[in-house]
Amino acid sequence: MRFSVASDLNYEVKKPSVFVLNVEAAALRRQRVLTESLNLTPALAVDRYVEGESGTRLVRVSVEPGPFSVSYRGDIELNMLDSDPGAVAETPVAELPLDIVHYLNPSRYCESDLLARFANREFGGLPPGHSRVTQICNWIYENVDYVAGSSDAETSAYDTMVLRAGVCRDFAHLGIAFCRALTIPARFASCYAWQLDPPDFHAVFEAYLDGEWYLFDATRQAALQGLVRIGVGRDAADAAFATIHGEIEFKGMTISIAPTEPTIAEAPTVRAVGIN
Amino acid sequence: MRFSVASDLNYEVKKPSVFVLNVEAAALRRQRVLTESLNLTPALAVDRYVEGESGTRLVRVSVEPGPFSVSYRGDIELNMLDSDPGAVAETPVAELPLDIVHYLNPSRYCESDLLARFANREFGGLPPGHSRVTQICNWIYENVDYVAGSSDAETSAYDTMVLRAGVCRDFAHLGIAFCRALTIPARFASCYAWQLDPPDFHAVFEAYLDGEWYLFDATRQAALQGLVRIGVGRDAADAAFATIHGEIEFKGMTISIAPTEPTIAEAPTVRAVGIN
Amino acid sequence: MRFSVASDLNYEVKKPSVFVLNVEAAALRRQRVLTESLNLTPALAVDRYVEGESGTRLVRVSVEPGPFSVSYRGDIELNMLDSDPGAVAETPVAELPLDIVHYLNPSRYCESDLLARFANREFGGLPPGHSRVTQICNWIYENVDYVAGSSDAETSAYDTMVLRAGVCRDFAHLGIAFCRALTIPARFASCYAWQLDPPDFHAVFEAYLDGEWYLFDATRQAALQGLVRIGVGRDAADAAFATIHGEIEFKGMTISIAPTEPTIAEAPTVRAVGIN
Amino acid sequence: MRFSVASDLNYEVKKPSVFVLNVEAAALRRQRVLTESLNLTPALAVDRYVEGESGTRLVRVSVEPGPFSVSYRGDIELNMLDSDPGAVAETPVAELPLDIVHYLNPSRYCESDLLARFANREFGGLPPGHSRVTQICNWIYENVDYVAGSSDAETSAYDTMVLRAGVCRDFAHLGIAFCRALTIPARFASCYAWQLDPPDFHAVFEAYLDGEWYLFDATRQAALQGLVRIGVGRDAADAAFATIHGEIEFKGMTISIAPTEPTIAEAPTVRAVGIN
Repeated sequence: MRFSVASDLNYEVKKPSVFVLNVEAAALRRQRVLTESLNLTPALAVDRYVEGESGTRLVRVSVEPGPFSVSYRGDIELNMLDSDPGAVAETPVAELPLDIVHYLNPSRYCESDLLARFANREFGGLPPGHSRVTQICNWIYENVDYVAGSSDAETSAYDTMVLRAGVCRDFAHLGIAFCRALTIPARFASCYAWQLDPPDFHAVFEAYLDGEWYLFDATRQAALQGLVRIGVGRDAADAAFATIHGEIEFKGMTISIAPTEPTIAEAPTVRAVGIN
Repeated sequence: MRFSVASDLNYEVKKPSVFVLNVEAAALRRQRVLTESLNLTPALAVDRYVEGESGTRLVRVSVEPGPFSVSYRGDIELNMLDSDPGAVAETPVAELPLDIVHYLNPSRYCESDLLARFANREFGGLPPGHSRVTQICNWIYENVDYVAGSSDAETSAYDTMVLRAGVCRDFAHLGIAFCRALTIPARFASCYAWQLDPPDFHAVFEAYLDGEWYLFDATRQAALQGLVRIGVGRDAADAAFATIHGEIEFKGMTISIAPTEPTIAEAPTVRAVGIN
Repeated sequence: MRFSVASDLNYEVKKPSVFVLNVEAAALRRQRVLTESLNLTPALAVDRYVEGESGTRLVRVSVEPGPFSVSYRGDIELNMLDSDPGAVAETPVAELPLDIVHYLNPSRYCESDLLARFANREFGGLPPGHSRVTQICNWIYENVDYVAGSSDAETSAYDTMVLRAGVCRDFAHLGIAFCRALTIPARFASCYAWQLDPPDFHAVFEAYLDGEWYLFDATRQAALQGLVRIGVGRDAADAAFATIHGEIEFKGMTISIAPTEPTIAEAPTVRAVGIN
Repeated sequence: MRFSVASDLNYEVKKPSVFVLNVEAAALRRQRVLTESLNLTPALAVDRYVEGESGTRLVRVSVEPGPFSVSYRGDIELNMLDSDPGAVAETPVAELPLDIVHYLNPSRYCESDLLARFANREFGGLPPGHSRVTQICNWIYENVDYVAGSSDAETSAYDTMVLRAGVCRDFAHLGIAFCRALTIPARFASCYAWQLDPPDFHAVFEAYLDGEWYLFDATRQAALQGLVRIGVGRDAADAAFATIHGEIEFKGMTISIAPTEPTIAEAPTVRAVGIN
């Protein structure tokens, strides 16, 4: 399945600033970047870095005061792993790759240590596997209200557990925290999300099951098969589309994603979808 | 029903200290103090204060360095209001006495403002009345583990909502917070508690329904009909058995309560019990 | 000194709602209400309550859907206690009136228990008395930025201690918490505030010293001699100008205060000002 | 300078458990492991992983119920970078290696986002470089009390900023949070610490300056030149000496470190010490 994605970010830079951008589609085995362009206005030299394991791509640029815009276009082919959920087991901690066990640790927005008792009470007795993480997503969907503006950059899973309202990043943080509490490695993923309305950067999470990173979206707002992944990290602290050191005014952005193979009627939703 | 209660507190005072004690049974219409004694060793002059509405009795004493002990004995007659739970309605906010509406406000350990969405999701649709508060207690009993040592003096209802473990004060705080969020005035009560094992000061909560303060104990550890109330307040911050300004070492305490009319076989539990 | 105060609150009531209003000037020995009027539109019957100790006045009214406005006008004479700060001592805890010792307890927004170590490190060694509370105000003024919009209804003194930004209620909460940690009873006060720019309800705090409640404003935004007190409580949870049970839309408000004896040139600021 | 280090951990395993251990000295350019042994009792097969950038070494082992002990011995040669502090500059964010910029992000115990205003108020105006981080350590040492037992596994830099008491991990977390808030990459390091009394695993932090990771210890309890580093991570969540999935009882541990070249008289303390 192919998608055309685009993002345009506009800033007024007030003082010399360093931007670390993360808007390009990740380069993954199951996510091929067919063509792409990143245009900065003014045109400026950049530093680049690709995180090996996850394919997350960072672009750094130093910008002088004045208008600054970032424009990304990409044609992306997804060949996602499409598994029978019932056949996707959890990986015992004794068999997890040791380079990803840090995804079991609590992080800034995912206090899995503090949610452990609840997670084990609520989900500990469920059959392990992909379906258990789906049950976690169901719980979040049923127990947390999706309310734009109900949370902010300080809100963590601990808070959402009490406040019971949030947006996509909060839903992802809670899912991650529950998974880690159950000894399932989990991480935050930013993406271009087909069918998300209104269009925006979206946040979902990935759980490591049976040797793969599988995608989960507790908000049910976008099709898993239409997620073009940008960056991953422990939580939202690691996956900002722009981290800015300096002083700027954000002037707005537009995001879009559209399938370029129009024969795709609709996204099936009962499959386990892996991306890496 | 009559009870004999006793408490003995022992301290080693290191520097001149002021104690504000709250160990005497409250003087209430439905809780008569037949006889009582408060002995301090050394014998010291005290200041006394009885809070009018609640009958909470404070004793203040200034103590020089050295051993200090407090010994209280009381014979108490309870003639509690014994109502049919199904007949106890909630009082509409338009009819609440205005001198108790502050018991709707959030307090140090009962962040009813932050638990409002959950409380309304979970309990908002239940039929109002005494049974709704009983349902709140049931929820707490079923969803929070009673674990000695799992909380401390900083733990609030917000925390307990996530951590899902606590002791009697945490159970009371959560009940209070849920009630307030539902516009039911609620307050914290310390008491001597018949059948509590091991014997200790106990914490329960009171909800204002139908013109009375009714008792609730989400821990199910003591009989409501055997609660001899000591102090009430917004939460545990107001109902310490001893608030000490100075420097002391706590050497231990013993608490006891026993019925003095041996014909009482066991406590019935299906009644609505009001105390004031 | 005389002031004319006014407040106009406008609402669109969506569903039948109960308002508990607290906009009238408190009736105090040192704050005489010469004339006043409270007009509700539509005109509706109200319940009234005056809290004895503090003079806080509550008005309750049930309102049907539709426009609803509250208009208060008052002519107030202040004869505030005007003391030499150097002569105002702290009251030892052994001598505090026992009916106000609860103002030493932590509350929803003033976690004096958690700020105790800092308060004692920073202010514990200062000479006790009015000047120590002034030093607390100075510390807040110098260490916390006044930034409109930097805090919200959930922000507590604990948060402000870290975030170092806030508005008048946050400044008051931090002052209260520090005082309580030092065994100085302290409470929150809402008021009409002369010279506050732009005009709004203001929040300050009161500390109990030498048998009186003295006013303190760590924001330095208004003259203490020009504070017409409305309500007091443990913190902002107790002193809302309107607590609304129901569903409304707030349409805005206007607040004003002006001296009516034009001979007053400017407010002196080096005096200890008591209000009760 | 050479050190002999040892650690012995003893457990009673209650149910089959997986241990992820991190007790071996890291293998670094400036920290050579001359000889070492890791003995498990019972002897069990292990999985091993060395994190490339940091040299952190993980050992995983599955253990059946019964006694289990871990015994590590190592002879370590330190050839630490020994710089003139005045010559160690901060690295501008525009020049930071992009693979370490995640050490600028907030983490579970280091909410640098929330401490940013304070950090910039207090340290923002200081001359950048190694001395600024030393000033951060001085501030922590002077403003936070080292009190054993004053914090627990939930305590974060946010809390320590208010509570003003903690142990080595809290001092490290606060230092890390301040550095990140100032755009200095910082991370948590566990180590064997010469001169630490009583002997224990120690926690310090590393700041990235001038192309190197420099060591800092705000507790002033150990000599920087005598730190044998074990593991690093974003905060304590990443650097536990043992993460255990299962059910065990901890029976105690002994830690030791001693210089093996007795000619070393005492540790100099005015140098900038880099380890990697």
